[in-house]
Amino acid sequence: MPEPLFRRLALIGIGLIGSSVARIAKQRGDLAGEVVVTARTAKTLARVRELGFADRIETDAGRAVQGADGVMLCAPVGAFADIAMAIAPHLMPGAVLTDVGSTKQSAIRDIGPLVPAGVHFVPAHPVAGTEYSGPDSGFTTLFEGRWALLTPPPGTDESAVAKMEEFWRRCGSMVQRMEPGHHDRVLAVVSHLPHLIAFTICGTADDLEGETRQEVLQFAASGFRDFTRIAASDPVMWRDIFLNNREALLEMLARFVEDAQAMSRAVRWGDAGYIEDKVERGRKIRRSLIELKQA
Amino acid sequence: MPEPLFRRLALIGIGLIGSSVARIAKQRGDLAGEVVVTARTAKTLARVRELGFADRIETDAGRAVQGADGVMLCAPVGAFADIAMAIAPHLMPGAVLTDVGSTKQSAIRDIGPLVPAGVHFVPAHPVAGTEYSGPDSGFTTLFEGRWALLTPPPGTDESAVAKMEEFWRRCGSMVQRMEPGHHDRVLAVVSHLPHLIAFTICGTADDLEGETRQEVLQFAASGFRDFTRIAASDPVMWRDIFLNNREALLEMLARFVEDAQAMSRAVRWGDAGYIEDKVERGRKIRRSLIELKQA
Repeated sequence: MPEPLFRRLALIGIGLIGSSVARIAKQRGDLAGEVVVTARTAKTLARVRELGFADRIETDAGRAVQGADGVMLCAPVGAFADIAMAIAPHLMPGAVLTDVGSTKQSAIRDIGPLVPAGVHFVPAHPVAGTEYSGPDSGFTTLFEGRWALLTPPPGTDESAVAKMEEFWRRCGSMVQRMEPGHHDRVLAVVSHLPHLIAFTICGTADDLEGETRQEVLQFAASGFRDFTRIAASDPVMWRDIFLNNREALLEMLARFVEDAQAMSRAVRWGDAGYIEDKVERGRKIRRSLIELKQA
Repeated sequence: MPEPLFRRLALIGIGLIGSSVARIAKQRGDLAGEVVVTARTAKTLARVRELGFADRIETDAGRAVQGADGVMLCAPVGAFADIAMAIAPHLMPGAVLTDVGSTKQSAIRDIGPLVPAGVHFVPAHPVAGTEYSGPDSGFTTLFEGRWALLTPPPGTDESAVAKMEEFWRRCGSMVQRMEPGHHDRVLAVVSHLPHLIAFTICGTADDLEGETRQEVLQFAASGFRDFTRIAASDPVMWRDIFLNNREALLEMLARFVEDAQAMSRAVRWGDAGYIEDKVERGRKIRRSLIELKQA
């Protein structure tokens, strides 16, 4: 077995991503010699103890990172500034500090200025998820065949970046580097906007009057159901993502609303050609995905 | 084996729904003694001949319905008026005329006035589908555990309605009667609006500039993909559905766009509570679906 990449890896936050990493680390043995886990609530930590994938559990984030040569923030992105503040004085020189947040400009904004000299911050985003959350939801194959996007700012220590690339490859990911602003724009389209839309349409349905509302649930199978799956995700995580990718998300949402209104107008005025063209483009995109094996 | 419900069943149109019905009829034997198929294009009919699930193929819809005690319109809803016009003079007294269209008020508007005395028109909607279309796409389990909604106008012959209820039960469906206008409002929410939104977001993504557009396809797995699946459906079928459920669809779309704009405002002004509440409601609806076993 190859040498573990980290002698001691501290996971700050232990939801779907963190607990999947912990499970993989335990299973493979070549990610970390020791996995230390900390989380915000005693309840979560008690459950982590029962699940048995942590070598050590710490209630205090500062203590958790002491002596760790790898530190990974796996909490909602809105908590990054506070966490960085709490752990900064305890980070070991030479350690790699990384995160798994879905918004990279905000991670760099919130964590970057607090990183002590000699600690290497490598912002990253494993693009993987399910609608489940919490320490029970993780599993060892979560990252298999999925992308891990690394967005190191200019000047980031190259060996630290290479280490995190190898880390995600061992987790089963395909790895790519990306400029943080570009990452946030792409993710706004492929993930943040679809989630915002899914939450919104669930709310629209929830506002319906009694009988119709009941029947929406009864007949959900015909399209609506696909929206509810992605709408079942963690509220705090998504609140933080929306608020921390505000600019790109609002830009994409504005485009989408314009397009929806154009479609509305086409339906109102019976513009069959316009509607057909839009549906045809949906098909074309689906075919492109199938060719790219992303479907 | 019970007596076939129809001595001769004519299917007008042979896409996903029609070819699934034909396959089930062939497999079960108790739906129809003979299945006659007609379609708009020679190419489709040639493929039906190869697939072998039709007892007889007719290029002319009028000839196809001659002597049939069951006639089912399985074409896009926009074609119903023309088809009704073409077949009306050839319908046999006592025959049951039914359809599988997704918009019921328009079916009653377009077909109802042309139904000859003595022919029993039972509008119906098997709420089942995939993103595939054409005679190759059908399969015998399509309707299993799915709803078939019957929307007979007042005064419809009760034995004809009961016969169609039994027909769909034998196809594996759960059966429910519904007022046509109510059907159209419920389907606008659970199916037509989600499809319109999915087509729209695919268009929004398709309009992006080169590199970002390419990467949307590359990283589609994180939410966008779920939208493209339902956006891969047949353009003519969906054009017709949108245009024939205009009023209910525009009403629901207007509500949705208002809600999306409220969400946009919450993101812009950092209203964390509002966003969390919306995400929480998405979760709640998902849980309701799971309890109703619709998820």
